[in-house]
Amino acid sequence: MFNNLDKYSVVLASNSPRRQSLLKELGVDFTVQSSQGDESYPDDLVPEKVAEFLARKKADWFTDFSKNQLYITADTVVISDNVVLGKPNSKAEAEQILQSLSGKTHEVITGVCLKAKDKTQSFHSITEVRFSDLSNEMISYYVEKYKPFDKAGSYGIQEWIGMVGIESIKGSYFNVVGLPTDVLFRQLQNI
Amino acid sequence: MFNNLDKYSVVLASNSPRRQSLLKELGVDFTVQSSQGDESYPDDLVPEKVAEFLARKKADWFTDFSKNQLYITADTVVISDNVVLGKPNSKAEAEQILQSLSGKTHEVITGVCLKAKDKTQSFHSITEVRFSDLSNEMISYYVEKYKPFDKAGSYGIQEWIGMVGIESIKGSYFNVVGLPTDVLFRQLQNI
Repeated sequence: MFNNLDKYSVVLASNSPRRQSLLKELGVDFTVQSSQGDESYPDDLVPEKVAEFLARKKADWFTDFSKNQLYITADTVVISDNVVLGKPNSKAEAEQILQSLSGKTHEVITGVCLKAKDKTQSFHSITEVRFSDLSNEMISYYVEKYKPFDKAGSYGIQEWIGMVGIESIKGSYFNVVGLPTDVLFRQLQNI
Repeated sequence: MFNNLDKYSVVLASNSPRRQSLLKELGVDFTVQSSQGDESYPDDLVPEKVAEFLARKKADWFTDFSKNQLYITADTVVISDNVVLGKPNSKAEAEQILQSLSGKTHEVITGVCLKAKDKTQSFHSITEVRFSDLSNEMISYYVEKYKPFDKAGSYGIQEWIGMVGIESIKGSYFNVVGLPTDVLFRQLQNI
């Protein structure tokens, strides 16, 4: 299914178990390394470019290509009212973020970077996500039980809140989970 | 989370392990019974109404309410070019259905019926699904490995083909998996 991928030693540089599981299900053989570096970006970067910028930044951290490594890095951001929402630092912040997403449409963007010795390519995919009106009871129940502190926008679409609270999406579902699997598959096929 | 649901003994009447797992993740306590009856429908029924018609038909089969049962039945259909696509009967048919969906948008409709002694209510949800161009290699690999013979439209969105071949969806993802979880949750909350 992949023409040239066996030339490379594929490394997924991500701490996310969801990304590891998605890449595995694509049929790619890979090892995992921790993702490094801070997640800061220039203040004047337009929100839509943040995810891909951070994916490239994570990729730039790698300099060892002695085993013909192909590093895959990724970053997912949630953008609501033109503001990039990060990961919540507390229960209160998680609840407040979910309240701000309730009854509205926001964008989820995952940026991906593929970096090998002789090439670097990056791309991103945008999915619109619409939450229905979330009651305070639903929000506290979810935050208490699922502790979404490692998730941009304070939610996992594959978790309870995604099942009961998301009315519709427009775009790729797996992009919201953590990787734009369709685009990534094609890029890996043609590498 | 559910106001009146504990008055009922909830029964999911479905053979689908995906539906069982979705309902469980919603936080509903239930038992499972086999779904009964044939899946025929009137020739002149418009395609958009078939799923809900079949869900009601499956519910009508149940007449025992001695334990205050609330039966949940469901049916998922795939509609492409105004034609309802059923489950494939052979490898060749599965491949042919996937070829017909390749590079196009189709509709997935799940109809659900809730039936108790004193009430019957039904609803459905529509999700548009767009496949990118699927190569013959991708189609044979998927059919051979995943054997989608129990699936309307010959694919599971949560499987490999859904990850690599679906460009975008518009609507509820879980509706394509087998239950419109958001609408169902609200109906069960307000029962």
